[in-house]
Amino acid sequence: MSYLDREIADQPAVLERLFSRESRQIDRAVQEIRAFRPQAVFLVARGSSDNAGLYGKYLFGARNRLVVALATPSLFTLYRRPPDLSGCLVLAISQSGRSDDLVGVVAEGRRQGAYCLVLTNEPRSPLAREASRVIDMRAGRERSVAATKTYTAELMALAMLSVGLDGRARDREALARMPEAVAGTLEAGARIEELAGRYRYAERLAVIGRGYNYATAFEVSLKLKELAYLTAEPSSSADFRHGPIAVVQEGFPVLLIAPRGRTLDDMRDLARALDQRRAEILAISDVSALLRTARTALAIPPGTPEWLSPLLAVLPGQLLARHLAAARGCPLDRPRGLAKVTRTR
Amino acid sequence: MSYLDREIADQPAVLERLFSRESRQIDRAVQEIRAFRPQAVFLVARGSSDNAGLYGKYLFGARNRLVVALATPSLFTLYRRPPDLSGCLVLAISQSGRSDDLVGVVAEGRRQGAYCLVLTNEPRSPLAREASRVIDMRAGRERSVAATKTYTAELMALAMLSVGLDGRARDREALARMPEAVAGTLEAGARIEELAGRYRYAERLAVIGRGYNYATAFEVSLKLKELAYLTAEPSSSADFRHGPIAVVQEGFPVLLIAPRGRTLDDMRDLARALDQRRAEILAISDVSALLRTARTALAIPPGTPEWLSPLLAVLPGQLLARHLAAARGCPLDRPRGLAKVTRTR
Repeated sequence: MSYLDREIADQPAVLERLFSRESRQIDRAVQEIRAFRPQAVFLVARGSSDNAGLYGKYLFGARNRLVVALATPSLFTLYRRPPDLSGCLVLAISQSGRSDDLVGVVAEGRRQGAYCLVLTNEPRSPLAREASRVIDMRAGRERSVAATKTYTAELMALAMLSVGLDGRARDREALARMPEAVAGTLEAGARIEELAGRYRYAERLAVIGRGYNYATAFEVSLKLKELAYLTAEPSSSADFRHGPIAVVQEGFPVLLIAPRGRTLDDMRDLARALDQRRAEILAISDVSALLRTARTALAIPPGTPEWLSPLLAVLPGQLLARHLAAARGCPLDRPRGLAKVTRTR
Repeated sequence: MSYLDREIADQPAVLERLFSRESRQIDRAVQEIRAFRPQAVFLVARGSSDNAGLYGKYLFGARNRLVVALATPSLFTLYRRPPDLSGCLVLAISQSGRSDDLVGVVAEGRRQGAYCLVLTNEPRSPLAREASRVIDMRAGRERSVAATKTYTAELMALAMLSVGLDGRARDREALARMPEAVAGTLEAGARIEELAGRYRYAERLAVIGRGYNYATAFEVSLKLKELAYLTAEPSSSADFRHGPIAVVQEGFPVLLIAPRGRTLDDMRDLARALDQRRAEILAISDVSALLRTARTALAIPPGTPEWLSPLLAVLPGQLLARHLAAARGCPLDRPRGLAKVTRTR
């Protein structure tokens, strides 16, 4: 069994552990953030953690009314002209905690008096040492180069933080149900191995998500690229209509991330437009009617509120990338030319 | 002659007009922004204008020390849960000024007491009516669906704004030289028609830029998608190493946006790594040594400072997309399935 398979399967246990053991640490961060009263959130991450950050952008915007800026590390490293962070909550997300550029951003934030929160799976890493406070993902070491369990742990930690800042009892209950919902989604994904074969010779694929699941589109695309060497391109349904849709012709595969919620009507409209172009539609959804219209239906169980749906919607994407990688003869744990820790400057 | 060709060729005159006729209006905006003292910039745009916004993010960060958040319009339209914008400079960029979602963001900003600046080519549009102040691109009507002259006009307006906020005399002089530099770059691009033929049957291409030219990577990708129906994928050199590089094998085309400046060493390193994988390198650069190592060299004239280089670096990309579209039999002015104004909700 590959590390990748093990780490995908581990996700329910990882989320359970994070929820039960890290809640107090998150509560402390919440108290400190309230006292600091940030003017904006300055979020810094790379790779899959950056995709988790996209989720945070919608989550903190919609639920906590916070303006979230995604950082541009090169301003710190290459240009050495950091913006004024003194009133910001600097939020760094990193599996390894070892990217020099992230360390540089957080160090600069501390120097300027920002409140610096670090979400990482390595609480003794150089990044963690720069933090005002550290949230530990407690995911266990991640050995596969393609991140899976640390990604969903990061989503969960962000959701816990958001609920801590402005949450009602039923939000906490919804959070507590996530480990089980993740387990159910992974079980439902057992059929994906057969479905993946169809895309053995695909070279490109568009992945569309919006709102909370904009992040999911990016993360599923990244898995398809890293693992199956597929040119998968993420975008929002709105941005897709602004140009990229021009590449779609008969048989062009488009994966829609379309769980129930505020973005569903928009995704349905797009599905119709794609159908007129005879695109090949794949859908990740908990809506049976939409799944029936897709050539490849990747079901997630119903009953999870939209703001938590990214924790489920990414899972069929992880599995699709994993099985497609196998079908295409790509190594599962060590994709061509990638290392677990990427040095960037 | 297509509208597209005319609009590409018009760019020096458009920039000249913008610089000479809109400077006073920009000075007024600068005074008002100074008085308002924004905590952060909340930038909202779609399509090519969103790519111009990416330039603004680096520009205002590096030159003006401002934290810039790119807006998530769906928080306003689909979720109806806008963040707290009361201390923000809301900056909307739109060619047509007719996207309902952008109008909604600016209207909400005004309601909350934000200072709302609108950059548009249509100063009597619904978007302009919501603004605290309007900067008019004065680019003349843009008829080709793929934006070219309004994109460079937006970059120029952003640069004028940044220099107004914190600029020295030599920065103003550099700005004043841009219309001529753009004209020189377009002339140097006459050879691109021959070079484009080589990519007649390419299906995918990665476009890499960083820092100020991260925006250029996105805009050139969008042109290649809209006009030549090529799956062109933009990323930063840092993000590219975090996964997408796995898709690169022998002959895979990668376009590097690599003008002289702080990002050059990083782009050189990447060029070497790509060369080891026998990728096919295309380069837009003003550095002869780098151009010599590329299979397809797209030269821009030297002498423009890095922070203004995106105004030049995008031009060979526009021309490449235009000539590739012709080689592939794609219509120049009305790409398949796109309209000039895209309605998004």
